[in-house]
Amino acid sequence: MQKGIIRLNNPPSIAATGNIVGKKEHEGPLGKYFDGFDETDTFGMPTWEQSESEMQRLALNRALDSGGYKIHDIDAIFAGDLINQCTSSGYGLANFDAPFFGLYGACSTIAEGLMLASMTVSSGLLNRAAAVTSSHNCSAERQFRYPLEYGGQRPPTAQWTATGSAAFIIEGHNKPPYISEVLPGRVTDKGINDANNMGAAMAPAAVDTLKRYFDESGKSPDEFSAIFTGDLGWEGSGILVDFLRAEGIDIARVHRDCGLLLYDRIGQDVHAGGSGCGCSATVLSAYIMKKLADLELTDILFVATGALMSPASLQQGLTIPGVAHLVRITMSGSTEAKNG
Amino acid sequence: MQKGIIRLNNPPSIAATGNIVGKKEHEGPLGKYFDGFDETDTFGMPTWEQSESEMQRLALNRALDSGGYKIHDIDAIFAGDLINQCTSSGYGLANFDAPFFGLYGACSTIAEGLMLASMTVSSGLLNRAAAVTSSHNCSAERQFRYPLEYGGQRPPTAQWTATGSAAFIIEGHNKPPYISEVLPGRVTDKGINDANNMGAAMAPAAVDTLKRYFDESGKSPDEFSAIFTGDLGWEGSGILVDFLRAEGIDIARVHRDCGLLLYDRIGQDVHAGGSGCGCSATVLSAYIMKKLADLELTDILFVATGALMSPASLQQGLTIPGVAHLVRITMSGSTEAKNG
Repeated sequence: MQKGIIRLNNPPSIAATGNIVGKKEHEGPLGKYFDGFDETDTFGMPTWEQSESEMQRLALNRALDSGGYKIHDIDAIFAGDLINQCTSSGYGLANFDAPFFGLYGACSTIAEGLMLASMTVSSGLLNRAAAVTSSHNCSAERQFRYPLEYGGQRPPTAQWTATGSAAFIIEGHNKPPYISEVLPGRVTDKGINDANNMGAAMAPAAVDTLKRYFDESGKSPDEFSAIFTGDLGWEGSGILVDFLRAEGIDIARVHRDCGLLLYDRIGQDVHAGGSGCGCSATVLSAYIMKKLADLELTDILFVATGALMSPASLQQGLTIPGVAHLVRITMSGSTEAKNG
Repeated sequence: MQKGIIRLNNPPSIAATGNIVGKKEHEGPLGKYFDGFDETDTFGMPTWEQSESEMQRLALNRALDSGGYKIHDIDAIFAGDLINQCTSSGYGLANFDAPFFGLYGACSTIAEGLMLASMTVSSGLLNRAAAVTSSHNCSAERQFRYPLEYGGQRPPTAQWTATGSAAFIIEGHNKPPYISEVLPGRVTDKGINDANNMGAAMAPAAVDTLKRYFDESGKSPDEFSAIFTGDLGWEGSGILVDFLRAEGIDIARVHRDCGLLLYDRIGQDVHAGGSGCGCSATVLSAYIMKKLADLELTDILFVATGALMSPASLQQGLTIPGVAHLVRITMSGSTEAKNG
C-alpha cells in the first residue's frame, strides 16, 4: 500500500529565510515584506537568465546571513527553476561550496525542495539543508511564450510569471516554525492544453493532493489557519474550491492563493494572477513567514503547484500534466504530527 | 562543519531494475545485457521526445514487473532527464499513480535519484522508491546541438548521447546489492566552455567528489572491485585519472567509464564515447548489476557526472559547471558502512 502523508517524527525548523524580488513585486500589496528588490529587474547582469541566477545567489546569501550561517554549515542545497536545464540554479549557486541536488518541479519547486530538505534533516541524514528557487518574468517570457519585444497579447486566464527568488534553511533545532508533515504530489493530467490557462491545468493536481491529505488525516480544512496554494491564480483557485466542494471538502473560508496575494490583480494588470517558481516561494518566505512569526497564522498547509509541460510538448499537441506538493507548517512543536 | 559521506545505517537494497535501449546500444559490446531495444529507436511514438518518454514508461514497467511490484507498492518516483522542462519524465511517468519528485542532474541524474531514494528508504520515511532516467540521441541532438538533418560534424572530443532508459526499485529489505553510502557532489566549474568537450567540463567535478570520498573514508581505490564513472568518455577519463594522481590517488587500475563501456568507441564511431542520462543508468542497470549478481564485482563506487549548462548559457558565453554524485554499492551487508 502506497504511503501517503509523511509525518516527520522530529519536525525540523525553518531556521532562516531570504528573498529578493523585482520592481513589480515590490510595488504590489506585499512589497513591504520583501528583503530586497531591484528597480531595473536586471540585478546588475547582462542577460535575463543571468539576472535570475543572480537572484538565487542573493536570496541564499541573505538566508545564510539572517541565520548567521556560513556555506560550510549547509550539508546540501536543493534547488531548481523553470529555465532550460535549470541553469538559474546551476549557475546561480555554482559558487556555493555545498553538495547540490538539482530539482525540477516547475512552479511547485520550493515545496519539493522543502519536502526533501525537511525529510533528510528530520531523519538525521543531514544536519542542515537549503531549499532555493527563482523565476524571472523576462527569462520565462522568452522561453515559454514570446520575446518581450514582440508584445504578444495575453488572454484573461494568463498568469504573470513573478520575478523573485527565495531561499530557506532547514535545521533540526527546536524553534518554530516547524515542518511537521509533507505529502508529495502525483502527476495529474486532465487534458488541458491551453498554455495560457495554467491555473486550470494545475488545479486538478491540487485537488488530488488536498483530497488525499484530508481523507487520510481525517482533519477538516477549518482546523488550519490557512491553506495556501501557489500558484493557481484566479481561474485555478475557483476550479480548486469547486472541485473540492464536489468531494465534500470546503476550503473556501481558509483558502488563499500566492498568485493572488503577490499582486493587485486588476491594478497591476496581471490578468489571472502571479505564477512561476518565485511566486509561492517569495510569498512564503516574506509574507507567510512573518504572519507565522506574529502568530497570526499557527498551522498552515502550503500546497505549491507546477505544470510539467514545455513549449515543445505543447507544439507537439500534448496536454499539460500538473503536480502539487503539500508541506504542513506549524508554530507549535506539540502537534500530534510530532508523534505520528 | 559540512557533512561529507552519508552512511546509510540500514543500507537499502536495489530490489529490482529494468532498462531499454536503442539500436546502436543494442549493437554495442553490452548489447546482450539489456532487457529490450527498438530497432527503429522510435518506440512506436511520433516524435523523438515522446519516444524518450515511452522509454521511461517501458523501463519502469519492466522494473516493477521484474520485482513483482504494482505501482501502488511504490511510495515515490525520483526521475529526471535532459530535455527542456524534464518532459521525458513528466509525460513518460504521468500515468504511474505515485508521488513524483522531478530531478535535474543532467547526466548524473540516476545517481541523484538513487541517492534520494536510498536516503528516504533507509531512514524509513518511505518503504520503497523508484529512480528513473533516460536520454535519447535524437531528442538531445536537436535540443543541445543541431537537428539531425543538418548533419553537423562532430569533433573527436564530442560524446554520443545514448538512447536508453533505466529504472531502479529501492527497498528496505535484506538482499544484496545494497546502497551503503552516498556522497552528493558540489557544482564545480573550471572554465571549460566547449560544448563538444563535456568530458573535460565534468571531470573536475568527479575529481572533487572522489578526492572528498577518499580523504574522508581513508580508503584506497584498490579496496574496491571497480570505480565506475559516467560519462566522462575518453577525454574526461584521462583527465580524471591524471588529476587524481596529482592528488596522490591512483584509480587507474580499477577505473571504468560507462561512456566507454557502452559502445565500441572506434567501430561504432562515437568519438569520445557515450553520454546522456541513459548511458550510466543503463550500464548500471544491465551490465554492472549482472556483474554484482555474479559476484565478479562485490564493492563498487558509481560516480555519475553531469554538465549543468544549456544551449542558451553557452550562447551567452558562460562556462560549463559540472557535478558528480557518488553511490557506493556493495554485495555484503556486513561492511563497516552498515554501522557507520
